[in-house]
Amino acid sequence: MSGSWPIPGVDLHLELDPATGRRAGLEKALREAVRTRRLAPGARLPATRRLAAELGLSRGTVKAAYDQLVAEGYLAARQGSGTVVARLAHGSADDPDRSSGEAALRPRHDLRPGRPDASAFPTAAWLRSARRALGAAAGDAFAYGDPRGRIELRTALAEYLGRTRGVLASPDLIVITGGYVQALALLSRVLGEAAPAVIAAEDPGVTFHREVIRRNGPAVVPIPVDEQGARTDLLEGPGFPSVDAVELTPAHQYPTGGTLAPGRRRALVDWARSNDRLVIENDYDGEFRYDRQPIGAIQGTAPDRVAYVGTVSKTLGPALRLGWIVTPRRLLEPLVEAKRHDDRQTESIGQLTLADFITCHAYDRHVRACRLRYRRRRDLLLDRLDSRSRPPAGFSVHGVAAGLHVLLSLPACGPTEQDVLSAAAARDVAVGRLGDRWHAPGDHPQGVIVGFGTPNQHAYPAAVEALTRALDACSR
Amino acid sequence: MSGSWPIPGVDLHLELDPATGRRAGLEKALREAVRTRRLAPGARLPATRRLAAELGLSRGTVKAAYDQLVAEGYLAARQGSGTVVARLAHGSADDPDRSSGEAALRPRHDLRPGRPDASAFPTAAWLRSARRALGAAAGDAFAYGDPRGRIELRTALAEYLGRTRGVLASPDLIVITGGYVQALALLSRVLGEAAPAVIAAEDPGVTFHREVIRRNGPAVVPIPVDEQGARTDLLEGPGFPSVDAVELTPAHQYPTGGTLAPGRRRALVDWARSNDRLVIENDYDGEFRYDRQPIGAIQGTAPDRVAYVGTVSKTLGPALRLGWIVTPRRLLEPLVEAKRHDDRQTESIGQLTLADFITCHAYDRHVRACRLRYRRRRDLLLDRLDSRSRPPAGFSVHGVAAGLHVLLSLPACGPTEQDVLSAAAARDVAVGRLGDRWHAPGDHPQGVIVGFGTPNQHAYPAAVEALTRALDACSR
Repeated sequence: MSGSWPIPGVDLHLELDPATGRRAGLEKALREAVRTRRLAPGARLPATRRLAAELGLSRGTVKAAYDQLVAEGYLAARQGSGTVVARLAHGSADDPDRSSGEAALRPRHDLRPGRPDASAFPTAAWLRSARRALGAAAGDAFAYGDPRGRIELRTALAEYLGRTRGVLASPDLIVITGGYVQALALLSRVLGEAAPAVIAAEDPGVTFHREVIRRNGPAVVPIPVDEQGARTDLLEGPGFPSVDAVELTPAHQYPTGGTLAPGRRRALVDWARSNDRLVIENDYDGEFRYDRQPIGAIQGTAPDRVAYVGTVSKTLGPALRLGWIVTPRRLLEPLVEAKRHDDRQTESIGQLTLADFITCHAYDRHVRACRLRYRRRRDLLLDRLDSRSRPPAGFSVHGVAAGLHVLLSLPACGPTEQDVLSAAAARDVAVGRLGDRWHAPGDHPQGVIVGFGTPNQHAYPAAVEALTRALDACSR
Repeated sequence: MSGSWPIPGVDLHLELDPATGRRAGLEKALREAVRTRRLAPGARLPATRRLAAELGLSRGTVKAAYDQLVAEGYLAARQGSGTVVARLAHGSADDPDRSSGEAALRPRHDLRPGRPDASAFPTAAWLRSARRALGAAAGDAFAYGDPRGRIELRTALAEYLGRTRGVLASPDLIVITGGYVQALALLSRVLGEAAPAVIAAEDPGVTFHREVIRRNGPAVVPIPVDEQGARTDLLEGPGFPSVDAVELTPAHQYPTGGTLAPGRRRALVDWARSNDRLVIENDYDGEFRYDRQPIGAIQGTAPDRVAYVGTVSKTLGPALRLGWIVTPRRLLEPLVEAKRHDDRQTESIGQLTLADFITCHAYDRHVRACRLRYRRRRDLLLDRLDSRSRPPAGFSVHGVAAGLHVLLSLPACGPTEQDVLSAAAARDVAVGRLGDRWHAPGDHPQGVIVGFGTPNQHAYPAAVEALTRALDACSR
């Protein structure tokens, strides 16, 4: 089976690659067609029977291909309306909760993790800061500047991070980046410069971040996670001989939600110290702690061993692409060179605006307001989930003390992730799938990740209700 | 000679590397000390005699090291005040005119090329556009979005580039980047993905861009430049068997200032077509043409072979880090993936603001006003240089029809580049050195590059006067 095949009802000729098998070839061709928009979002695909006849394949083969692409999110199966091409939301396909199935559709009830409520952006206050900042800025605000970023922002961040996150930061050791992704990309390149590097990343963790690391040089090995967080106690063991760095989320492990236990923090720092290694501390939502003061950053205890990374993605919005690395001095020059040869510097207007926004304390006020709002959302969610934590449902909820998501782990003998996602999808609810966060497929515990950040205020209660109905449906 | 040595009068111990020679070791140690700020900008270095005695080196060795570092811009020798540590302007060290000597100092009269007048930034109009854009923007303006960039900006650019640069652009084939550097970095990675790639770059050209290419994978080979522009007629010849792409500046060759001749354009496109190769068209200042309508982009004649790259760096300011690739369709997905894994997407507020700025025609007005201003600056410069074009000086001026710089080539028997740069430096004037733009050292024609973009309006005439005095001084 090869050559060019017309898809009936859709203006498309499938290039079927003879090298790959029948089903795989069909999947590949359809995937490409959706990716490259040759199949337009919303376009209806022919019935499996018809396409099978057209391509001379068994109907089962075509059905299997459709199912696979639905699972991957390229296609969507809606009751009654057959199989249609999904709206590929490039944008949602690769933030912390990047996963195939849930990423592709823009659901009515969006409870995917890793997203803040973008509608809460403080537009008026931000524009005031922009006006002040640009009014005060010299012409050089628009000229080539320090690849590390604007001194105004690095100075404001040094104070803010010291005060709120216990970070030991001097402005000259801060590098402003285009969010966490660029920070991780730069650190990966720097680590891989001299020799092939290996970075240990949490398992489960952020799939997309592992891709970013690999694509920028280093190999990735899994470091297991339990209720005390990443198993940093294993680093000195035989499993991790050649690890150059550990990338992890100590304040609020993604996605399990735990906090790295004190003993684990010590083990991590001792390992980094005694082996001259690096810790990449991803403090992605450290501001949002609900039970007590936020846990201080590990960096504060080992500034020479930790590259601390934070962003405004969860506090203001990921589209601002503003992040920062607080780096050990020895990595400063390599990081600056990597940044220069990547995009030269981060744009300055956003930096100057954020610097003003922080120094006039609008940032503190905004973060406080968000923390309160998200705490209320979390409380509503926990209240609704509470009754489902008892049999027959027996869901258990983890990681409720911080952040913008909780992990709902499924009882061994209960519904599977797919059951829950399907029941949710049937009600146009999207949640995250724990299964997508593991380094390798396997017999992993089942769970779904519920983000409570994304919906705007008035849409949130309905989203929670829809989720609970889905849970009830599949736990019967 | 090795170990740690105190520098008298400066709080610094030099780590002298025994592996390197005496002079090289001293240079290396001082360079590092300045780079890492252990030697603070402005700090005065001990007299050569004193340091020589301290280190047990000959005074000539220390003098030679000082001179080298002055030439490289790490140190500055000012009459009367001895040798001091230069202010390393990271920022100016690597834009189109990156070169060692001139990059490090922030001179009073800045006639270095590659820089627009940052003081001309239309702050009020920009803020108006920002307010309109954010007022109109849905919440998703702050959420994860398409890695290609905001559709509002891609749509505005498609119209603008078609109208002003003859670019055939559809919004879905535009990728917004962090300026030209990121565009080149992404294209380099994509070209090098499958197999080792080779990119031909103009000689002379932009040194920093060659570094960006190499650092992101591909090797760089020189393609010579003459008065008709890059020697694209050589591409079919034996010298370029394995070239995958040509990166060049057709509208206004940097730094020689010529326009790629029609025959050369045809040769380039024919080569790309018949060999399935790529042209990277760097349209860095295509808006600024003074003798007639700007030359249309090559991309318009071969959209399937040309990746067209433009930015606002010369029109609004490089610190905005806003650029765009108009890509052949086959490169779209690889570019999107490279962008996603680099910084995910370009920040959205600047994009939305620029989209409004373009659609309300403020951008057209601004570009027109800049063109007029720069044209007047150019005319003043040419007027002052005119008399120097005759013996005894015999300078000749090239590339006057467009852009923000001219090339001043030096008579064979006249002053050298170093003579001119020294005479200029003595008057606190900085210009570009043609010698820094060649791929390899050699017996190249001598010239200096004079940028007329950087100074603000009231400072410009004095800068030109200072330059002409410098030229007179060294042509006597």
